[in-house]
This record gives sequence, structure tokens and C-alpha cells, in this order.
Amino acid sequence: MNYKVVLSILGKALLIEAALMLVPLLVGVYFNENSYLSFLIPMAGLFVIGAPLSAIKTKDGSIYAKEGFVIVALAWIVLSVVGCLPFIISGEITGFADALFETASGFTTTGASALDSVEGMAKSIMFWRILTHWLGGMGVLVFILAILPTAGAGLMYVFRAESPGPSAGKLVGKMRHTARILYGIYVVLTMFEALLLLLGGMSFYDAVLTAFSTAGTGGFGVHDGSIAYYDSVYIEMVVAAFMFLFGINFNIFYLILTGNILKALKSEELTVYVVMILTASITIALNILFTLDSITNFWQAMRYSFFQVNTVSSTTGFATTDFATWPALSKGILLFLTVIGASGGSTGGGMKVARLCILARSAKANIRRMTYPRAVVSVKFEGKTLSQETERGVLTYFILYIAIACVCTLILSFDIGGVFDNFSATLACISNVGPGITEMVGPMASYAAYSPFSKILLSFVMIAGRLEIFPIIILFVPRTWKKG
Amino acid sequence: MNYKVVLSILGKALLIEAALMLVPLLVGVYFNENSYLSFLIPMAGLFVIGAPLSAIKTKDGSIYAKEGFVIVALAWIVLSVVGCLPFIISGEITGFADALFETASGFTTTGASALDSVEGMAKSIMFWRILTHWLGGMGVLVFILAILPTAGAGLMYVFRAESPGPSAGKLVGKMRHTARILYGIYVVLTMFEALLLLLGGMSFYDAVLTAFSTAGTGGFGVHDGSIAYYDSVYIEMVVAAFMFLFGINFNIFYLILTGNILKALKSEELTVYVVMILTASITIALNILFTLDSITNFWQAMRYSFFQVNTVSSTTGFATTDFATWPALSKGILLFLTVIGASGGSTGGGMKVARLCILARSAKANIRRMTYPRAVVSVKFEGKTLSQETERGVLTYFILYIAIACVCTLILSFDIGGVFDNFSATLACISNVGPGITEMVGPMASYAAYSPFSKILLSFVMIAGRLEIFPIIILFVPRTWKKG
Repeated sequence: MNYKVVLSILGKALLIEAALMLVPLLVGVYFNENSYLSFLIPMAGLFVIGAPLSAIKTKDGSIYAKEGFVIVALAWIVLSVVGCLPFIISGEITGFADALFETASGFTTTGASALDSVEGMAKSIMFWRILTHWLGGMGVLVFILAILPTAGAGLMYVFRAESPGPSAGKLVGKMRHTARILYGIYVVLTMFEALLLLLGGMSFYDAVLTAFSTAGTGGFGVHDGSIAYYDSVYIEMVVAAFMFLFGINFNIFYLILTGNILKALKSEELTVYVVMILTASITIALNILFTLDSITNFWQAMRYSFFQVNTVSSTTGFATTDFATWPALSKGILLFLTVIGASGGSTGGGMKVARLCILARSAKANIRRMTYPRAVVSVKFEGKTLSQETERGVLTYFILYIAIACVCTLILSFDIGGVFDNFSATLACISNVGPGITEMVGPMASYAAYSPFSKILLSFVMIAGRLEIFPIIILFVPRTWKKG
Repeated sequence: MNYKVVLSILGKALLIEAALMLVPLLVGVYFNENSYLSFLIPMAGLFVIGAPLSAIKTKDGSIYAKEGFVIVALAWIVLSVVGCLPFIISGEITGFADALFETASGFTTTGASALDSVEGMAKSIMFWRILTHWLGGMGVLVFILAILPTAGAGLMYVFRAESPGPSAGKLVGKMRHTARILYGIYVVLTMFEALLLLLGGMSFYDAVLTAFSTAGTGGFGVHDGSIAYYDSVYIEMVVAAFMFLFGINFNIFYLILTGNILKALKSEELTVYVVMILTASITIALNILFTLDSITNFWQAMRYSFFQVNTVSSTTGFATTDFATWPALSKGILLFLTVIGASGGSTGGGMKVARLCILARSAKANIRRMTYPRAVVSVKFEGKTLSQETERGVLTYFILYIAIACVCTLILSFDIGGVFDNFSATLACISNVGPGITEMVGPMASYAAYSPFSKILLSFVMIAGRLEIFPIIILFVPRTWKKG
């Protein structure tokens, strides 16, 4: 382990977090709030620790796969732990566990809340709460990559470890340029959504924060009623459309921007993602139309269904209705969409549609190999033969995802909640969706009832889910910490 | 596909089933029951169809992997469909779906019942119902292998396709000898259990059937109250001990019989199986001791806990108490034991402990490969380096297991039951356990409430689970049916 390079990059991450806290600080000043100390104290701390770390001279600046994983895992844990200080100092959240849960939920774009109500929260604190979604969506270290002039081929590993999907790749020659292009698309789409929301009559503050929350596929709402608060079909459809867009692989947008529209439309992952969302929306619409008395026509059913399918598929977690009270088929579909999640290379969470495709292809190939032991069979995806490395990575991710889901469900069982409440809560956290499908952890409830221990456990599960498990697992392998 | 050899072996399976129906027929005669037509009619039918098929001359008698899978899959479907006729003709079960469900549940040793009550069922019909457990446990085609003088190296594929676990192998030189040794151990253990039950005061009829049901790790009870009916700690502990034994890889017994006791005790799978059962039993005992008012001391808790852990781990499905009413932690543990199941090469179902070990090893190896991309890492199990073929088989099994569980849960949602009732029912059927952990499908309930369509679906899921999925999947691949 190259400790110096790890600490140096961690130091930079801390300084960046200090700089980012300036934004909610200024929001507090604009709204005449007495919250400046809530930000100044952590900023001072971050600077005092971050500056010397960041200044560490690294003779050997090389970063390999291992360092990439460790940097990303530690950065996310440290940023969450420090990021919760404004909540505690301001008194908006009592207790470290609740504050950590809320911050980890923010950065990982899960959107699960430990708070029963957020009405009356200071505007600057709320801004920080939702800004974490926007930062976490595209990645905090990708952000550093985008703005710092530091080069180095090894940063590819940092980028890979933080970016969602089975195989994050460079769009253009240099890593830093790729990061800038991705953040560029991200900023423009976010601004565009905020503008459309303003046109729908939202306040500027609400529009910006709702756009942040959607862009990161987070799900924290500015009001207790989430998007249902605005009671506007226009706003619901704008948000649903952008949840859909932010669940798409950003490479697709890059291809479209560079004129390769045909190539973009040929994407297998995009096709599966679109077909999945349409099929699920229509099935759920018909299911609730025929079982719920409150739904009287197909379009009303589609309004609820399309929004909820996109909120779960993109792993955002906004809600316009309490789907925990929906019939079994609809809840079953939403549970499986929770596990599948968004596309690779999007800001969404879950297993990713690309991995689902690769698992299916891999299984199909192996069945052929078993039936015809002498046949030579290769696994293709997006027109390319998959490397054994990618295939193995996907299979291992799948095993670990299910193992963590099982273990976490069992540990939560020492706390309150039935088996399936805990199972649904775990899946909602590891997939970074937020709300589960049982009423205890459903969209109209919160995670407030869990014990501090369970909240800290779930915070780690959210981070493990956001970083796609490997970086967090590697922290627990003793060999990782050996010198050399 | 070599159709001739497939049909010829299917014909033999039908003739064997006809011969086996003689046993319950004689039981009926002994008990002076008027049930002989219920057996004679299907026997005649089986003979008329089976005899000419069995006589098909096969110039080219070669069986490859594909034929092995297809023979086993078709045989199990046909035997279940024909095996349900005695229930229908006798009038003990009304409706094809219920009768098929009961028979598939019997042969696959699931033990899930579509009947609300079995008290008053004719003794000969009950005998057939539970004999299917005993036949299905070790395998119907393995039985044919054991008694018929047919040789042929290709029968290895039939044996592999029917035997549980990631890598079924020959114990001795010839396939037929291996099959005989396995059935020999099976018969002796079954007789031994029946004897111990007789000594505990059970009637001869009940003792034989309970031993059949335990040996196959089936779970059909002779009485509505399952094993709780006898209200005897002795009987409970005998049954629990034999459930444990029948959940062990039969190679272990062979090693012990041939004097290789040390080698037997070194088995990694055995160690994990034993540690898993002990840990689960003690954890559940403590959990129910501290939460249930009806449990007053540790040994009473262990009595219930040890029995239920073994019934689920071995995938038998007997019950001495309603664990669907237990606290979340206990139910969670039982649910995961349902998925894991028994050891490979036992009569039990589920994913198998060996596969769990291989998945864990495979994941560990891949994490090392990702962290140190240039390292050469191999996956070992039971002291041997795993072939890529075995590792792939296990990974694919895992993907398909979860895919079938998801799809079946969704399809069941069109019927009655909540998401988690259906999820638990699906897992209980695909793992051949029988009772689920929700009250609707729990040990004191039955599957009677499901629609005929759902029952037929679950019958297929049980067969897919028992045959470890591949043989059933291959039936749906069009290429399988091509000539040549």
C-alpha cells in the first residue's frame, strides 16, 4: 500500500469538502440565518487536517487498483463522517447516528431519511443536505479529477472505483477530460431541469434543490410530502422524465452530443432499460387500476405508476403516493426494480441494467457449454466480446451483493421490524433507492425507528452499495494494509 | 438429440413406476381397502405405454450431456403426472392441479401439501404419497441404474443430472456399482430410523412412513400435526438426528464404511454444515427463549430450535411448532437456511453447502485478482483446485436460482398472497423445503389457497429445484430438440 499517495488524495478531498461547505454557508447568509458556525467549525477542522495531508510529498506517486479502491472507500467514509457535523452543530439533527445516516444517505444518493419531518429545517442546512446528493451522484473524487490539474495514469483506478457500472471507461484520451465532460453534461442537465421546474411555478430555492436531488438520483425532498407536496402533474412529469434521464449511461449523452446518435440508440443497455421501464409502468398501472378504489382511469394510474417506476428504477426515491400500500404484483415489481437499479455509468444505483444483461448472457453461455461440452462459446455485450475480467467482476459483485443483503437483514433482525421490513430496508439502502416496499420503511415512513447501531450499519451498507461493494470489502482484507 | 435412447430409458422409467405401484397396492390389500383400482388403472396405462417404448432398439446407444439432462427432466415430469393418478382415481384429492402438486411435492421431496387435512386418507394412498419421497430422495433414475443390468458410460450423464450437488462423481469404477452402494446406505439408514421409531412406541405403519419421509428429506407427515402429533421428545430427537444425517453427503458415509474416517472428518462441506446447524440452533434457541412467553428454559428452546433448524437445513419440512410465529431473527435465519439447504450428494435440496463454499471461495479469489491484477489465483475446495467448468456451473446455478425465484414470485403475485408470502413459498418450493416462514404458507398452513395455475407453476419449480435447474431449463432451449 502506497500510504503517502492515499493520504495526499484524502487530504485534497477534505479541502474540497471544506470549499464546498462555502455554498450552504452563503445560502445561510442570503437567508439571514444564524447557521454560519455550523459550517465554519467543520470547515476549519477540514482545513487543519486536510492541508498538511494534501501537502504530503509523494516521491512515488503511482496508484494501482488497490490504492484506487482504498482511496475511494476511505474518502467516502471520511466525507460522510465530517459532512454530518453541520447537522449536529446546528442542532437540526440530534445524535451522531442519525446525522451520519442522513449524510451517508445524502452522498450515496440513497435518500432514506432518519427524520420524521424536515419542515422547518434551516434553509442553509437543507441546502447542504441536498447538495450532498448532487455531489455524490457523479462522484466526489471524479469532481476532484475534473477540477484539479493533477494528472497521472493511476487516477484511472480512482475513477473506475467510484464510477457505477461494470466497466467504466474513458470517453476521451485523458481521464481529466472525461471527468470534465461528464460533469459538464451533469451541470447542463441539472440546470435544464431547474429551469423547467421554475416554469412550473416552483420557487427558485425548491427548483434548484429538487434538480440537485433528481440529478444525483438521491430522493431527499425539500418538503415532507416529497414531490406530492406540489400536487402538480406538470412537476411530476418533469421530475419523472429527468429521473429517467439521470438513470441512463452518460456515455449515451456524450455519443448524442458528438453526433453519434445512431450508435447511441443501438445501445443494448439503453434498450433493456427503456423496455423494462415501459413494461413495468404499464403492468403496474393496470394492476392498480383494477385493485385500488382510488384509481378511476388508466391515465391516472399511469401518472402514479410511471413516476414510481422511474423513482425506483433510477434509484431516486421521490414519491407521489404510498406504494407500500399497493397490491402484491406492483410491490413485487418495484422490489425487483430496486435490485436491478439504473444503467451503468449513470448517477443511479442498484446492480445496474448492464450487469443484469451480462449475468443473463453469462448464464446462457454456460448452459450452452454444459449442454455441448466441446463447443467454444463467448459472451458478448454491446457488440464486444466480454473479457473474463469483466465477467468475473460482475459475477463476484452479484455474489457479494446478495451476501451483504442477507447478512445485513439478519443483523437488523436484532432490532425492530419483521424479516421482510429489514430485507426491504436493506435492499433499498444497498441499491441507494431509499424507500422500501413495506409500510415501516415505505415512502411515507422513515428509518427513524431503527436503533443508532442499525443506522450506522445501514450507512455503511449505503456506501458499500454506492461504491459497488469492492472498495469497502477490500478495507477488511488484512493484506491490503501491508506496506510495499 | 438421440430420440431413441431418450424414449427407451423413459419407457423403462414408466415400467419401474408401474412395478413400484405394486407396493401401495399390496398395502391396500393388507388393510382391506377398496383402493386396488386406483393403482391397477395407472399401472395398466404405464405398462401399455412403457413396454413398447422400453423395447425401442437403439443402434446408437450413446448418451451425452444433453441427452442426460433431457432424460432426467422428462422422466421427472412424466412420473409426476402419472404418479398423481392414484390420488385422483381414489377420490382422495379432487382436481388435477392439487394431485399434481402433491405428487411433484412428493417425488421432489418438498413436502409442501395442497391438502388442508390428511387424516382419514386411505392407508394405501398415504403409503404411495410418502413412498414418492423415498424414491425421489435418492433419485428415480439412480434407482433404475441400481437395479437394471444396463451398462454404458453415457449413463454417467444421467446420474450427474439427477444427483444433487455441484459435482456428482463415481465412488467406484462402475456407475451401476456406485448407484448400488448409495441405495444400500440409503436402505440401511432408513431401516435403522424405522427401528428406532418403533422402539419409541410408533406403530409399524407410521414408523416406516416417517422413516421414508425423513430419508428422502421430504416432510409429508402421516398426521395433520406432523411430528408434533406424537408429542414425544424421543421421537423428535430421533427424527431430528436422521434429518441431520440425511442432509450429509453420502460420500461421507461411504468413506466411513470403507474405513477412511479421518478423510471423512476432514470434509470442508461437512464442517461448514455442522457449524452452520449448531450456530443457527443456539442463536434461535436464545432468540425464542428471550422473546416467546411459552418458552421457559434453554433446553425447551433447544428442543424446538434444533428440530426446526434441521428440518429446514436438510430441506425436510417436518414441524413440531409453528415457526411462522417466531421473531424476525429466527425467521430470517430459517429463510437463509432454506436457500442454502443441505450438503451436495445428500437427499436434501436447496443450493447446497458445497455451492455456498464455492461461491465464497470464488468471490474471494476474484477480489484478490481485482486488487492484484497480476497475481495468479486459483480456487480450491476439498483440497482440490476447482475446474473452471465446476466454478462456472455453480455461478450459473446461482444466477438461475435467483432468476427463477424472482420470476415465480412475480407470477404468483397475480394470485392471492402478499409479496413476501409468495417469495417465501417460492423459496420453500425451489429448495424443496416445503413450509415457508410466513403464516400463509407456514408449517401449520398449506398451499391449498393458491389457484390451480399457481399450483402447477409451483410443481414445475419444485422439479426444477430438485433437478438443480439445468435439466428443466434445457427443455426450453429450441436447439435441444434438433436431430443429430
